[in-house]
Formats: sequence, C-alpha cells, structure tokens
Amino acid sequence: MRQDGRMPHEMRPITITRNYNMHAEGSVLIEVGHTRVICTVTVEDRVPPFLKGRGEGWITAEYGMLPRATGQRAGREAARGRQGGRTMEIQRLIGRSLRSVVDLKALGERTLLIDCDVIQADGGTRTAAITGAFVALVDAVDGLRRAGLIARLPVSDYLAATSVGVVDGVPLLDLAYGEDSRAAVDLNLVMTGSGGIVEIQGTGEERPFSRRQLDELLALAESGIRQLVAAQRHSLGALGAEVGSLVGQAVGAGQ
Amino acid sequence: MRQDGRMPHEMRPITITRNYNMHAEGSVLIEVGHTRVICTVTVEDRVPPFLKGRGEGWITAEYGMLPRATGQRAGREAARGRQGGRTMEIQRLIGRSLRSVVDLKALGERTLLIDCDVIQADGGTRTAAITGAFVALVDAVDGLRRAGLIARLPVSDYLAATSVGVVDGVPLLDLAYGEDSRAAVDLNLVMTGSGGIVEIQGTGEERPFSRRQLDELLALAESGIRQLVAAQRHSLGALGAEVGSLVGQAVGAGQ
Amino acid sequence: MRQDGRMPHEMRPITITRNYNMHAEGSVLIEVGHTRVICTVTVEDRVPPFLKGRGEGWITAEYGMLPRATGQRAGREAARGRQGGRTMEIQRLIGRSLRSVVDLKALGERTLLIDCDVIQADGGTRTAAITGAFVALVDAVDGLRRAGLIARLPVSDYLAATSVGVVDGVPLLDLAYGEDSRAAVDLNLVMTGSGGIVEIQGTGEERPFSRRQLDELLALAESGIRQLVAAQRHSLGALGAEVGSLVGQAVGAGQ
Amino acid sequence: MRQDGRMPHEMRPITITRNYNMHAEGSVLIEVGHTRVICTVTVEDRVPPFLKGRGEGWITAEYGMLPRATGQRAGREAARGRQGGRTMEIQRLIGRSLRSVVDLKALGERTLLIDCDVIQADGGTRTAAITGAFVALVDAVDGLRRAGLIARLPVSDYLAATSVGVVDGVPLLDLAYGEDSRAAVDLNLVMTGSGGIVEIQGTGEERPFSRRQLDELLALAESGIRQLVAAQRHSLGALGAEVGSLVGQAVGAGQ
Amino acid sequence: MRQDGRMPHEMRPITITRNYNMHAEGSVLIEVGHTRVICTVTVEDRVPPFLKGRGEGWITAEYGMLPRATGQRAGREAARGRQGGRTMEIQRLIGRSLRSVVDLKALGERTLLIDCDVIQADGGTRTAAITGAFVALVDAVDGLRRAGLIARLPVSDYLAATSVGVVDGVPLLDLAYGEDSRAAVDLNLVMTGSGGIVEIQGTGEERPFSRRQLDELLALAESGIRQLVAAQRHSLGALGAEVGSLVGQAVGAGQ
Amino acid sequence: MRQDGRMPHEMRPITITRNYNMHAEGSVLIEVGHTRVICTVTVEDRVPPFLKGRGEGWITAEYGMLPRATGQRAGREAARGRQGGRTMEIQRLIGRSLRSVVDLKALGERTLLIDCDVIQADGGTRTAAITGAFVALVDAVDGLRRAGLIARLPVSDYLAATSVGVVDGVPLLDLAYGEDSRAAVDLNLVMTGSGGIVEIQGTGEERPFSRRQLDELLALAESGIRQLVAAQRHSLGALGAEVGSLVGQAVGAGQ
Repeated sequence: MRQDGRMPHEMRPITITRNYNMHAEGSVLIEVGHTRVICTVTVEDRVPPFLKGRGEGWITAEYGMLPRATGQRAGREAARGRQGGRTMEIQRLIGRSLRSVVDLKALGERTLLIDCDVIQADGGTRTAAITGAFVALVDAVDGLRRAGLIARLPVSDYLAATSVGVVDGVPLLDLAYGEDSRAAVDLNLVMTGSGGIVEIQGTGEERPFSRRQLDELLALAESGIRQLVAAQRHSLGALGAEVGSLVGQAVGAGQ
Repeated sequence: MRQDGRMPHEMRPITITRNYNMHAEGSVLIEVGHTRVICTVTVEDRVPPFLKGRGEGWITAEYGMLPRATGQRAGREAARGRQGGRTMEIQRLIGRSLRSVVDLKALGERTLLIDCDVIQADGGTRTAAITGAFVALVDAVDGLRRAGLIARLPVSDYLAATSVGVVDGVPLLDLAYGEDSRAAVDLNLVMTGSGGIVEIQGTGEERPFSRRQLDELLALAESGIRQLVAAQRHSLGALGAEVGSLVGQAVGAGQ
Repeated sequence: MRQDGRMPHEMRPITITRNYNMHAEGSVLIEVGHTRVICTVTVEDRVPPFLKGRGEGWITAEYGMLPRATGQRAGREAARGRQGGRTMEIQRLIGRSLRSVVDLKALGERTLLIDCDVIQADGGTRTAAITGAFVALVDAVDGLRRAGLIARLPVSDYLAATSVGVVDGVPLLDLAYGEDSRAAVDLNLVMTGSGGIVEIQGTGEERPFSRRQLDELLALAESGIRQLVAAQRHSLGALGAEVGSLVGQAVGAGQ
Repeated sequence: MRQDGRMPHEMRPITITRNYNMHAEGSVLIEVGHTRVICTVTVEDRVPPFLKGRGEGWITAEYGMLPRATGQRAGREAARGRQGGRTMEIQRLIGRSLRSVVDLKALGERTLLIDCDVIQADGGTRTAAITGAFVALVDAVDGLRRAGLIARLPVSDYLAATSVGVVDGVPLLDLAYGEDSRAAVDLNLVMTGSGGIVEIQGTGEERPFSRRQLDELLALAESGIRQLVAAQRHSLGALGAEVGSLVGQAVGAGQ
Repeated sequence: MRQDGRMPHEMRPITITRNYNMHAEGSVLIEVGHTRVICTVTVEDRVPPFLKGRGEGWITAEYGMLPRATGQRAGREAARGRQGGRTMEIQRLIGRSLRSVVDLKALGERTLLIDCDVIQADGGTRTAAITGAFVALVDAVDGLRRAGLIARLPVSDYLAATSVGVVDGVPLLDLAYGEDSRAAVDLNLVMTGSGGIVEIQGTGEERPFSRRQLDELLALAESGIRQLVAAQRHSLGALGAEVGSLVGQAVGAGQ
Repeated sequence: MRQDGRMPHEMRPITITRNYNMHAEGSVLIEVGHTRVICTVTVEDRVPPFLKGRGEGWITAEYGMLPRATGQRAGREAARGRQGGRTMEIQRLIGRSLRSVVDLKALGERTLLIDCDVIQADGGTRTAAITGAFVALVDAVDGLRRAGLIARLPVSDYLAATSVGVVDGVPLLDLAYGEDSRAAVDLNLVMTGSGGIVEIQGTGEERPFSRRQLDELLALAESGIRQLVAAQRHSLGALGAEVGSLVGQAVGAGQ
C-alpha cells in the first residue's frame, strides 16, 4: 500500500471547479489529491506573427508555481529574472497538447492564452494543468460560440494527462511528490478521450527500463486517463456531453 | 450608493481562511470582496548579510499577481524577465509594514519571508495583502514558539490596511477597482490595532487635495481598519486574544 | 541644535541653476545643502501607446544616482542589469507629482521626459528632484510656447517637495542623510504653491506614529515648501511671476 | 523513396571524429547526414551544491546552435540575453540521458560538463548530440583513468539516440529537417546498447497516434540505435570493446 | 625561436575552406595555426531603422566562442544572459572593418549579417575572423550578383588582419595564445590589400611603448597581412583576381 | 577655421576641478570645451578573485552618460537592463590605461574603482575621462599615503588622452562632436607624460588611411597631450610636481 493508503492502480481524488475566476474567459481550479492548479484561458483577437493573415488560430500556455507551492520555498522566477528550464518545458508541453484537440482553423485568427498556476504542489502538476486547462478551454470556446464569434465548438476530443512510474519495482498510477522523487522510471502520458496518444514522455534516469515495463506503464496511465476524462465530462455537464458527441467527426486540429 | 450597493463608509465582506497551504509555516487566503490574495510565510534560519551576527531577525516580502487576476491579462513578470515598479513598490511596503509590529530581536536570527500572491484582483490588493499577511505571520511565529525556538510571540500589536479615496467628490472606504480607477484622490493607510500610523500614502494625481480632505479620509480609513482588526482577531481565535493582550507592553520592533 | 547647526524648522540653503545643460529643452542643477541633482527635460513628439490619438500629452520621469553620489559606493544599476525597487518607486513619484500641475491636454500629443540624476547625495534626493524638475519643466514648456507649438504655459501651480521626520523625538524639517538614517518617522510631502497636497508618504518603520505627530510634521513640511516655492519663483524671474498668476485659473491637469 | 533517396528504415551516413578539439578532455565532431555537432566534455573538480560532500559526481549539459546552422538565421541567444525553451529542454535531456549510463559514485566528486554545439543543422540535432557526447564522454573518463584519478571506466553501457516519425502516413527512421517539419508524429528515443529505454519522447501535435503506431516507431528507432552503437563502438576502437564488456556488470548509475 | 618553432616574423599556416556551411549565403572555415573560426554571411533584405529609405546597405557582425574553444572552459554567454565587453568590442571591430571596403550604396537596402564563431582558439581569433569574413562576404555578394540583384561586386579592396606584439623585448608576428598572454605590447592591425590602414589598436598595458616600437610592429604586421591577402586571393580563385582588379577604382565605401 | 573658431592644431579650453564630490576618495570635474565628465575614485580593500592573496592591487573603471548628456536623449542603460558595446569598450579602455602608470604591487591588495560619468557630451568623452581620472587617482592614492596605508605614491608617470581626426582632408586636434561625426579617420591616443604610447586606437571607417596620415595624426595628438599634462600638473599643485619627479624611476606597473 502507498503512503496515502492508495492501491498501486488508484488515482487520487479529483475535483474540478469551473468559473473559479471572475475575469477570465474560461477558468478552473483543479485538485488532484493535494495538488491544486488554477487554469485560466484568455481569448485574444490576434495571432503570433508567423500565423498572421492565414485565418488560423493559436494556443499557447504559460506555467508558474507560487513560491511556496512546494515544501521548500522556490525562488520567484520574476525576481530571478528568468523562467527556468523546467517551466519552459512544461509550458511548451501544455500548449502542444491542447493544440492537438482543437481545430485551429475553426477557431479563427484568435489566440487562446492558457495560464496554469500551481498554488499547491504534491506531484503531477503538469498533468493536472493539462487536464484542468482542457475544461477551461471548453468553457472559453463555448463563450465564443455563445457570443456568435464562432459557429461550433472547435474541439475534436477530450484531453487529459497523468503520470505513472516505477517505485521500488512496482508500477504506480498518479504519483504523489514523495513517490515521484523516489521513482526509477517516470512517465507522463497525454491522451485523448478516445485513446489516441498525444504525448508520451518517459525517463529512466535512475536506470533504463524495458519494453515490457513501458507496456505496463502505458496500460496503467490509460486507465487513469479514463477516470480523468470521466471527471471532466461530469464537470462540464451538458457541454461535456456535446464534447463527447464530437469525437470521431473529422474536425481534428490542423486537418 | 456605490456600484455594489455599499454605503460610502462601508467595507466589503472580509473572509480570512487560515492554513490555506499545507507546506507553509503560516498561510492565509484573504478575501475582501472579490479581491483574493494568498499570503504565505516561510521561516528561514538565516538573515540578510547586513544583519549577520547581530542576533536579530528580518522580515521581507514578495508580491505577485497571476496574469489573469485582472480584467485585462497582464504579462507574466517571470516571462518579461523583470518585476515592474508597481510590484517592487508594493513588496517594499508590505515588508516595511510588518516589520513595524514585530520585535525583530525576539525573533532571533531568522527571516520571515512573506509571499503575497493575488489570484483575483478587484482593488485594494496591497492592503488586503498586508492584512492577510499579518494573520499568517502570527501563525508562523506561534509555530516557532510551539517548537520551542522562541520564548514568546514577538508581536507588539495588530496590523491592518485599507484604501480610501475621493470619487465624484465623495470620500469612499475600501475602493473596488472600478472606483479606484476613477478616484481623484487615493490613499492607503496601514495602522496598528491601537491606532498608530505605520504608513500613509496619499496621491492626488488627478488634482491636489486639501488638509480637510486628508482628515476626512484618515477618519474613514481608521474605521475600516478597526473592522479589519476585528476580523483578524476573530479569525485567530485564542491566538487573537493573546495578540490583543500584548499591546501596550514594551516589545515594539527595534526598541 | 542639528549636526549642521540648523534649527529644527530650518531648511538647508537652496540653489537653483537654470540652463545647466546645453542640450536639454529645460535643465536645472538644484542644490539643497550638499544634495545636488541635475534635472533635465526632454520634449518628445509622441506619447505612450495608451494615449495615442487622444490629443493629450504625458509626463514621465527617470531617476538615477551616480555610483559615488553616496558615502558608500553603490553598484551601477546599468551594470547590475536592473533598476532597484527604490529607483522605480522614486521615478514613479516624480512623474505622478509633476503630472498633477500640468494641463496634459494643453500640452498636446507630446511627452515631457524628465531625468533626475543625483550627482551628490545627502538626504532628500527625491524631494530635491521634484523641486528642481518643476523649474526645468517650466523652461521646457516656455520653449514650446516661444516656438509657437503651444499657445500658453500649461501649468496650473507651483510644485515643490521636502522631507520631514522625527529624530530623537524632535520633528525636524529637511532631513540630511545623517538625520534621515536615524529617524523614527520619515515623511515626504509634495505640495502645490497654493497648499494643495499632491503626495504624502509617511513611514513609521521604527515605530508607529500618532495623528498629532502627523499634524506637526505636515505643518513643518508646509513651511519648508513655502520656502522652496519662493526659491523657484525667484529663480524663474519673469516666468516665475507668470506661473504665479496662473494659480486659481481653471487649467488644472486632467480637467 | 525519401527526398535524399533513402528507404524509410534507412539511417543517414554517420561519421564520428574523435579528438576534434585540442583543449577539451573529450571531444567529438559527429555528422549524421548534413547535421554536424561538436561535442566536448570538460572535467571539473567540483560538483553542484546539492551534491557536495557526498562523494558522488555529476553530469550536466549545455546545447547551442550557431546562428546560421539553420536555413533561416536564428538570433544568437547570447545577444537576446536568454536561452529559449527549446534549448533548455534539449540540454536537460542530454544531461539526464548520459547520467543514466554513468556510475556517478565511481566518478568521484567531479562534474562532466558536456557542450553540444550544432554547427550545421538538418534535423536530429539533439539525438546526434547525445550519440556524439557519449563517445566524447568515454574519452574523457578514459583520460581520468589513465591519469590514475579513477580506477575503472564508470560506464555501464553504450548510449545512443535517434528520431523517428510518421510522414504522409509512413513511419520513417532518422528524420531530416524537411521530413521532421512535415511529420504528423515525431518521436525521439534514447536507448542503451543492450536495448534499455532511457528516454522516450513522442508527440502527436498534428494528430494523436495509436498504440500500434507507437510500437512500429519504437521498432524502427531500435534498429537505428543499433547502427549508431555500432558506429560508436567502431570509432572507439579498443576502448569500444572495453565498454561493450562492461554491459551486464552491476555498475549501473546510482546503484 | 618561438614555442612552435617559428621565426619572429613568421606567420602560422593559413587554411581557408570556402562553402563550409550548406545554408549560408557565404561561409568560410578559416584556420590560422590552431585557431579555427567559422565565418558565415547572411543576406537580409532590410536595413537598420537609421538607414531606412536611403537606398544604402549595412554590414553588422556578431562574434562568439564555443565554451570549450579555450584551454579553460568559459561560461556560455547565452547562459549568463549577456555578452561580455570583449565580445561586444570584437563584433563592433569586425563590422566596422568590413564596412570600410564595401560600397554600401552599391549593396542596396540589404544587410550583410556576419557571424564569426570560434570553435578552437589559440590567439588571434578576432583577426582571423576578419580575414575569413572577408572571403565569405565576397562569396555572398557574388551570389547576389549571380542572382541579378546587384550589378557588380560592391567591394573596393581586399581586407585582412593580424596581431603583433612585443614578447621578452622581441617584436613577433601573429601571436599564438601563449605569446599573447605574455606580451608587453599587443597590437592588432586591419589593412586593405593595397596597404591602407583600416584599424589600428595597440595597447601597452604592461608598459608604454615608443614610436620606434610602433613603427617596427606596423612593418611586421604589414608583412603578415600581405601573406593573408595572398591566401585570400588564392582561395577565391577567379573571384580573387576580380577583387584584385577592383582596387584603385573609385568605388570605396561611403563615397 | 573650425566651427568654434579654433585652428586645426588647437585644443579646446581645459578646466579641472578637484574634490568635486564630498564622498569619494578622489574626484574631479573635467571640462574640455563643452564636454564635462565627473571622475570619482573609490578605494576598496579587496581585489578581484584572480588576484586574491598575491599582494597586488587592481584598477577598474565604469563609464556612463546621463541620458541627456547628448543632443538626442539616449535611453538609460539601467532601464534597458544592459550596458551597450560602446560603454563596455570605453570602460575597459579607461581601466587598462590607468593600470599602465600605476605600480599595482605598491598599491597593495586594494582596488581603485574609477567612475567616469559624462554629464554633458561634445566629443572626446572617453579621452576627457582618462585625463580627469588620472588626477582623481593621484588624489586618491595621496590620501592612502597620508593615512599611512602606503609608503609612497604608486604612480610612474602622468597619463592623458585626446582624439584627433581627419575632417574634409584636414587633420584636426581634439575633435568636437560635430567634427567627430564627419571625420573620415578618427584616432584616440593615450600617452604618458614622457611620451610613451599606452593605447592607440585608430579607425578609418569611412575610408582607409595611409602611414603618412597616421604619422601626422600622432604628432598632432602628442602636442595636445602635452597641453593636457600641463593642465593636470598645474591643477595638482605640489602633488603635480611630485608626480613629475617620479618619472624615470623604476616603478612602472607590473615590473
């Protein structure tokens, strides 16, 4: 049994609070165990220079942690004057992942700017950020539709993410910080609701891992993502059902 | 009547949630109307170089806003690579204010590092930060005492802050953002529980103001601070009563 | 008696040298005791983005200290790669203060860029900067008028500033550095020639201060500002008389 | 057939030039098709603060591209004043990968600082960097052994990396730039000589991919890595045989 | 005799490899002894703001060293976040020197962006950079001519550079690093093929030098530059003869 | 005749005001025509890391311009967050030049930190800075001697600098800004009182120059430097005579 009493294949409790912020076009507080991330979506009526005049939209993300989100206070990146490599890596991952399930052409020349800010961290902050940001994004594009700015939800599938790892030789789902820091193998998986792989990032820093272990970890992650998607769908209510109905229609991003 | 139905001399609802963060030595979520600030206190066993070896402690503060805390998304300071002038001004104010009610000698060679992060802004974020940080600080120094590291609460009085201003010729207490941006005169007051002035910052950018107006604004602010101190005391429970009992004892900061 | 032989309510000698710089549209060397600040005003034919096309002007300020303006050499901000919080706070104060007595509409779409550089510091550098910058600004806008670019002096009143403080329990006017560093209470006041308060910034870092002390300090500061305005008026000669004649006319900034 | 006449499962020509630099403790010019990367290893007699006094070594990497390594000149990161997210991501990957096959305890309190600089880019620069850096690292640790500073080669296996992707529905090995920019799925694999997975990073930015596609890509990458390891072994001569003999012995990193 | 067996007035072997880079409009690998510099020229269809609309071109240069180009690894400027004073000085020198032999009007509104990157250093990197960059520049402007974008080679003369110095009282040509670091006097000379001085930079940091020493050093440098120009001419083949034929025609830069 | 009525070989008026700053260990306001530079010398009881424990001193310099020292306001380097290439080049030149006439061993483990700040510019700011800094340095080391910290003046000769150039074909001494910006050739010379060359920097950006022109310019510069040294000697009074008497004694820097 794990430090918090979970079974190896058990997720932590998931809570998704929509409309957490009064200003943003979409916003969510997502809690996965003790990990808490605020995800907001800002809609801007412009696109980066490389897309100008092409009638397509863009999605980009920024990620941050409050200094005391962690057990040890981490220096504020704004005070240090630069974002660290980990931050940059994570925000690139979030943006890339969300772009995979949004039809950027249907979005029009708009940017969805996603901010994921960790207010309390206990492992899995990047995967919680992706899972929460998806819900906030659906709310934001629904707002665009209700305002008559776009004709339909430009979303092709659910998107969620979780982490898995091998700790003391045992594959575990949804690693808490204490597990993550001891894991020999650590793998993040981003997946669509219908099981397509969007991003796989696995590291055997402590020691290399085998194809068999990879297969086990992927199966474990997939079961977790199914639970996360169910939580997203439940949280989104009627909108959730609508997103589900879009899957399988030929509206994938960049197609 | 004001946009949110308040009377000119009326504060917005105040909510103080202690222990909002599982990692920090002291932490508070303070809500004043729609303004929400997370205040955490980190205790470090070292002091800045200029204090080394003098047996005294130090208090310093950092302030930030999530990018979408405001109606218009503000660029992330970490991404821009520098903290703006407003941020620096505010964090200097927070640190200075809290140092005025803490006996830094009694604190010993420790630094209390205060982080105030605005997760939703609707005016008065710096004053809410000071008010919330005081409560988090009391919890942090109480923790030091319970751990036997200091002998007594090194606090000499309550500390709270509010903003007042003149809008359309009428002095108003506790400005919301919509009022603040239209105010001809804008004044922030930081005060102790027993009515000592710790910081006064008044600006008549639109037009100069008179001594009479200053007197009216100070009276208004003072009444607001009394309500904030009452909320702090209530939130702190038994600790709050103890802080109240310390006032008047000769344990002021730097004395 | 004070370290330099002054009485508590006595200002240091004030010298204002106009046209100190051959290039700038307005320039002053102001000396208040040993404190020496060069103030230049540059006129630019553009305004910040947020004002474009509104037919209004803007005033902004920058502040700096030569590294050896102080007893201890301070690192050059250009070499450190960022301006400190104190610098940012002061330059925001200078800009805000001067905007309060200039009719920005009458200025037209121009920016007055004020540079205040301390070449020797002995306390009160920010207040000397404001006092000197006002004179340089009058020369700059007079130049615009003489060039036929604006119709009248867009100034509504004199503007000057000084610092007061409580040292060893005694309220003192115009603090020199040695006094400032020992002051329990420290207050900067920016006022118009006709006694309107433009900015009040008081700090009781060492210990809180009372309303009675605040009243005493304000009276002391007011008497100092009267002397500074007299020095400005004398230095400006005929222009000074003209500025005096503008007071009371309905040409305040932003009206 | 591919743009350069290769079959889908064919690698580009691989050239490894050892001792390319007269100063570094280990150095390699690796060419994979038109991609050319200089890898140098610097040995420093110190470790990062978090490892001090633990008797263990460390490996860290930096990555750069000459501005005109690419078809479009890219701004020099030194001139822009910050390393981009892509650079940070890659250098973290290189360091992590190499640490997985080095016994950091056997290295002693030393840091191997790996610099990978791309002088010409045509896709696969990060994987070429890893493959080349491994050879330079073996030379550097062999130098330490020959100097009597360590007793044995602290290496547990070969390490190489390649990229695979799906272009126009066809899985391709070792993507050139023109292919990479059109790939719907893009996957980098870092593997040991005996087939352990060290790092897997797969992205379906254009569209999600299936488990079956993942399996195909892994098989393709594995075949490429076998060829890269053969090239490393050949290039290292007698040292290469020695590295091969270490595999399977219980000297893995961090064990 | 010198450490590498040369006579005092002897240059190190010079190798110039044209078209070293497949992407750049002009590119050279220049080797002077162990010093190796990659010079690329990028042609951009725009000029800096101060030249816009004047029908003239511009030449600018950037300079860098790979971290391990030197015996001691030097921190990467991109990682430190700023280019050092030495780098800035050198890149200004390179740009200035090349502008002196190019007819910027004949170039049209284009910028030649020169990148000089030292991949191995053994003294004289800035002079090798200038010598190599000239050849790459000739190739780049020849390309413009062959593409019909300009009518003729906008070059007025050859340009090369070398360093001379006084070591142990003896004037030496083309200092290697070991000599440079011990030189009492150190002088860099940039000259045209017909003997015009473009830049002279001499330093007697250890001790001042006399006019007679200056004359000796200039004569020595001139003889070296003649050899460098011969190497450039030989390397350029038919293009080299053409450049030679342009000398003496009235097509100097800025005329 | 020149724009200000001077003959080609005529210097502008030179004024040297010692003890211009009340805080610095040595300070000078130097005026050469309209060019005005404040030079201060700070003595620090430590040396840079590379000199620690060697019993030798160091001299380093920083250079800055007030934003409106020039006709066009130049952005403040502190605000832009980095010092430009020109600034770095100049401050390296100032430090190097002064080190050439100071016996760093006799200085002991101290750093002389020279700040040169241009408060008004009209050409020749770097050479005025060197000339003024030398006088401030003599005062600073005299102060060390009077305090008994060093036994004798660690200075081996006078040091001064000027600029010369070719304008409209005529060699001119001591270029004012209007001349400098039109000069085809521009040369700065730093020389000792006894005529030793410390630094020569000549640029023919507009067009190359000949050996004969170089000789003419050197002669012109030398005559100007003799006048500058006379002004330094006069300004230093008795100290000036003493410096003169040291020339020729074997106390050169680094000997």
